[in-house]
Formats: sequence, structure tokens, C-alpha cells
Amino acid sequence: MNIGIFGTGIVGRTIAAKLAELGHNVLMGTRDTAETLRRTTPPAGGSPPFSAWQETHPQVRLATFGDAASRSEILVNATSGEASLKVLASAGEKNLGKKILIDISNPLDFSKGMPPTLTVCNTDSLGEQIQRQFPELKVVKTLNTVTALIMVNPGLVNGGDHHLFISGNDGEAKVKVAGLLKEWFGWKNVMDLGDITTARGTEMYLPLWIRMWGGLQTPMFNIKIVR
Amino acid sequence: MNIGIFGTGIVGRTIAAKLAELGHNVLMGTRDTAETLRRTTPPAGGSPPFSAWQETHPQVRLATFGDAASRSEILVNATSGEASLKVLASAGEKNLGKKILIDISNPLDFSKGMPPTLTVCNTDSLGEQIQRQFPELKVVKTLNTVTALIMVNPGLVNGGDHHLFISGNDGEAKVKVAGLLKEWFGWKNVMDLGDITTARGTEMYLPLWIRMWGGLQTPMFNIKIVR
Repeated sequence: MNIGIFGTGIVGRTIAAKLAELGHNVLMGTRDTAETLRRTTPPAGGSPPFSAWQETHPQVRLATFGDAASRSEILVNATSGEASLKVLASAGEKNLGKKILIDISNPLDFSKGMPPTLTVCNTDSLGEQIQRQFPELKVVKTLNTVTALIMVNPGLVNGGDHHLFISGNDGEAKVKVAGLLKEWFGWKNVMDLGDITTARGTEMYLPLWIRMWGGLQTPMFNIKIVR
Repeated sequence: MNIGIFGTGIVGRTIAAKLAELGHNVLMGTRDTAETLRRTTPPAGGSPPFSAWQETHPQVRLATFGDAASRSEILVNATSGEASLKVLASAGEKNLGKKILIDISNPLDFSKGMPPTLTVCNTDSLGEQIQRQFPELKVVKTLNTVTALIMVNPGLVNGGDHHLFISGNDGEAKVKVAGLLKEWFGWKNVMDLGDITTARGTEMYLPLWIRMWGGLQTPMFNIKIVR
């Protein structure tokens, strides 16, 4: 499958590496491919500069946002929350088309220090903002409640017995994405919360998630719904 | 122990009934005791008018907010989020003193229909508002992430193997409350998230909790942190 991933940070890289390993054609979108490859400063979080990462993942190709969008069947938004709307705009509405966009972004605002606040919440969400700005796109919010390593390998915690959520207006797109999450990564428990307004719930869960990380001293955890 | 509970709704009644059953002296605070006993309209949620409930729980006594505060060693805020600050103000700063207040309230705003939004979030929380308004009070936010029946009987789901959170500025008060949650109700897993600003996390979890309720068609669930 041709998959376009927006964002070259830790989330984008983790998803890209896993999908390439599975044999998919992965295009990672960035604003300026030459500039991204020229970068020598490592991004936040201690990962290497993109060019160094690219050398160890030669099968993942770098493209402009527009090319990554137009040449892919399915899209993944792994950009930071504050960049998401700009990135999608620069990809171009025509290139995005009516494709499925798996939206992993969280509207985190680190500008006032730690812990981050949210740039949007309560009566709106980033998922809704993206869906409103690109009404043809099938926005499916998911994966945004776990750390990158768990996104692509839920079996790393509790044998994969824990929950993920999914939000979106298009029922077929949600069924398709839930299937891909299982096929690609092994996600067994994906709860459909409802339309894209339910993305408020998973985005607003982040402040609790960040505090749990603090308490556990590791992001390698998730929640399991028990009854 | 003498325990004062603010709020005569389903949460207040459930906590009061359980604590009375355990042999504690429970005073339920209300604005106007005569008016509360005179009410014939059932509150939201299908529970009976207070007087009918009181008949089946004669050991629980009704008092004004001020009396419930002054005559108790420990206080429980089980009022609706929008009423909490007013109720505590009418209890009186002097009556509240330096006591521990177990704050179960959530800042839910039902005025715009379902699902509710929050009256405060992101950069502030109801727990913080209460702590700021009553700096002497030892506000300990907890129990606000589960439905009333689970608050007093965590064993009803998954044999009690799931998590509760606790937030507050006073370390000793949190240790004491965590001990009471175990002694009174049987809570085994209580995670200390940090100071009262971490109440933002548990209050902002409510929109997700409400959507999970919708998906599961029951509020009889909780989350278990798995690693």
C-alpha cells in the first residue's frame, strides 16, 4: 500500500519504519526535503537528525507534503498539533482529496513550559478543526493516547491487552482504519467513540496521560477498560 | 468518625449510605434542611426525593452546610461542579477550617445539552479554584473518575483491580485519604498524580469517560493502568 506520513519527528519515524518493515511504500512528507536532509541538529527527544535516521531506513522515501499526499492511498498526520493545519494546507486540498487521514496529532502547547496545555479543547478539538478545514478528507482520530513505540507494537505492554480509541464522521473509514491498526500493528481492542467531536475526549485525556507518565516514570503504559 | 458530606444527590447519598453502614456519624449538608425534606420532585437520574431516601437511611442526619462542616472531622464535596464554590462559601471559611476536603466534584456544564462541556479546564480546574478560595482547607481531589456505585465498591468491576487518582497540595492529607479510600471502600490502586494542579487531568478525563459510557452503554467500568 502507498502510505503518506506527514511529520518527520519521533511519531512519524516510528510509524514509517514499521510500515516499511511490513513492505509498504512509505513516503514521509516534509516542507522542504533538501532542508530536512541538511539538518544536523537532532530534534527534541534525543533522536538523531533525519539524515542519520534515513540512512538506517533507506526504504522510506522523503517527499514534499504535496507529493506525499497525492501519491498515497492513505495518509497519516504525525505532525505536532500546532503545525497540523498549516502542514495539511501546504499539502493542498486537491492532493489530499477524499482520502483517509489517520490523525495522531495532539494540540499540545509547550510554549508556557511543562506540563503542556492544549491549544484547543472542551468545545472543539484539533480533529474537528482538521475535518472542518478539509471537509472531503475522511479524518479518523486514533493512536494519540499512547506513546509512539506502543502505537506500532501494543504487545509491548500487558500482552497487547489494553484499549485504543477511534473517532470520525465516516463509519466505513473507521472500520477500515480499525482493520489496519490490527493488521499493521496488532491492535486488538479499538473502541469507536463516535463522530469526530469525540476527539475532544481523547485529546483532553492528554493532561492525565502526561501526569500518569510522571507518576510511572515511563511512557510505556496504556489504559485497559475493565468492567 | 464524624464525616460531613456536601450535596444530597446520587453521589452524596451513595457515599453517605456506605459510611453510615460502616458505623460513622454522617451529616449531610444542604442549604435549607426543611426545604430539602419538603421536596417531592425526584432529582435527575431517577432517584427518589430526599425525604423518601432519608426514611430508608435514618442514621444519616441532615444539617445545614455550616453545621455539617463545623461538626465533622473530614469533609466530602459531592455537590455539582457549578454549585461547589457557592456551597463551600455558604458553609463558611471558619467552619471549614483546616480540615481535609475530599473533592469529588466535576465542573460539568449541562446547560448546552449533552454531552456536557467543562466550566473550567486546561489552565485551571475546579479543584484549584476551591483550593485558592479556601487556602487553609486541605483539598484532596479523588473519586471523580468513576460512577458513584464504583466509588464505594470498586470490587464491582474486575475484582477491584483498576485505578483511582489523587491530587492535592498536602502530602499527609493525601496519604490519609488514600488510607481511608482503602479502609472505607476497598480501593487498592490509588495513584498520586501530584499537587492540586493535576486535578486538571482527572477533570479533563470526563469527556472521554462520558464517551466510553456511551460506547459501553453502562457507567459500570473503570480504567486499569497496564505496563
